[in-house]
Amino acid sequence: MADILHRIGVTAAPEDVYTALTTVDGLSRWWTVDTDGDPSPGGVLRFRFAPGGFDMSVLEASPGTRVLWEVVDGPEEWKGTRIGFDLKREDGFTVVLFRHEGWREPVEFMYHCSTKWAIFLMSLKRLLETGTGEPAPHDVRISNWH
Amino acid sequence: MADILHRIGVTAAPEDVYTALTTVDGLSRWWTVDTDGDPSPGGVLRFRFAPGGFDMSVLEASPGTRVLWEVVDGPEEWKGTRIGFDLKREDGFTVVLFRHEGWREPVEFMYHCSTKWAIFLMSLKRLLETGTGEPAPHDVRISNWH
Repeated sequence: MADILHRIGVTAAPEDVYTALTTVDGLSRWWTVDTDGDPSPGGVLRFRFAPGGFDMSVLEASPGTRVLWEVVDGPEEWKGTRIGFDLKREDGFTVVLFRHEGWREPVEFMYHCSTKWAIFLMSLKRLLETGTGEPAPHDVRISNWH
Repeated sequence: MADILHRIGVTAAPEDVYTALTTVDGLSRWWTVDTDGDPSPGGVLRFRFAPGGFDMSVLEASPGTRVLWEVVDGPEEWKGTRIGFDLKREDGFTVVLFRHEGWREPVEFMYHCSTKWAIFLMSLKRLLETGTGEPAPHDVRISNWH
């Protein structure tokens, strides 16, 4: 098993970061504009990109502290993996500890997704600090795989 | 053991990417301006940042295909870990598969370094595609840890 890990800090309050992670409107402003579904625990969120997308079951949503999803549909490598966001306050920043865990093998697609997650987390940071994120299809291109 | 993985694609030729990874001038234009040492196999490279830095022993440098370093001095969590860059040509891009492997524990510093590596690899991409990278201390800030 292999995990993707990231850490960013944003100057917004934990409540605002939490809103960006637990509302369709918030998620569509930093990850992909084509987002819908039910962001509450037990619900399923649907994220779509040009080449396909992901359905996430919301396992946990604890206001201001933690969001956890499980991938229930999408690319074979993603199915059954979990994506978590832990929030804490430190030095005037809301720190986001991000984990995409449970990859069965460190395939090349995992390398790509790791870098792409960093790009999208920086989009989340930008959204919260400037009011404008860079969600797909307006995301920063990193390679031939986009 | 835990690894940081990333994948980027740059429109420059493999030889140019290789030069940016194996010369003091190249490295100082995307990672940190305070770089010196001997980038040939068996040499030691010295990278410095405001809070400290890393000394890397060059284990391998195969023109146009592979660069591998081992951390011989720096933060405790980095010592003994290895940093590799594998290059290949695909769809008009030089693909860089990056690996910082052998972390003993997935500590919070590893989360930070994972995101920061993505930022610096995008700086490498920018250097090769536009002529100007964003090496420390001009790097993109991601959090309270910089």
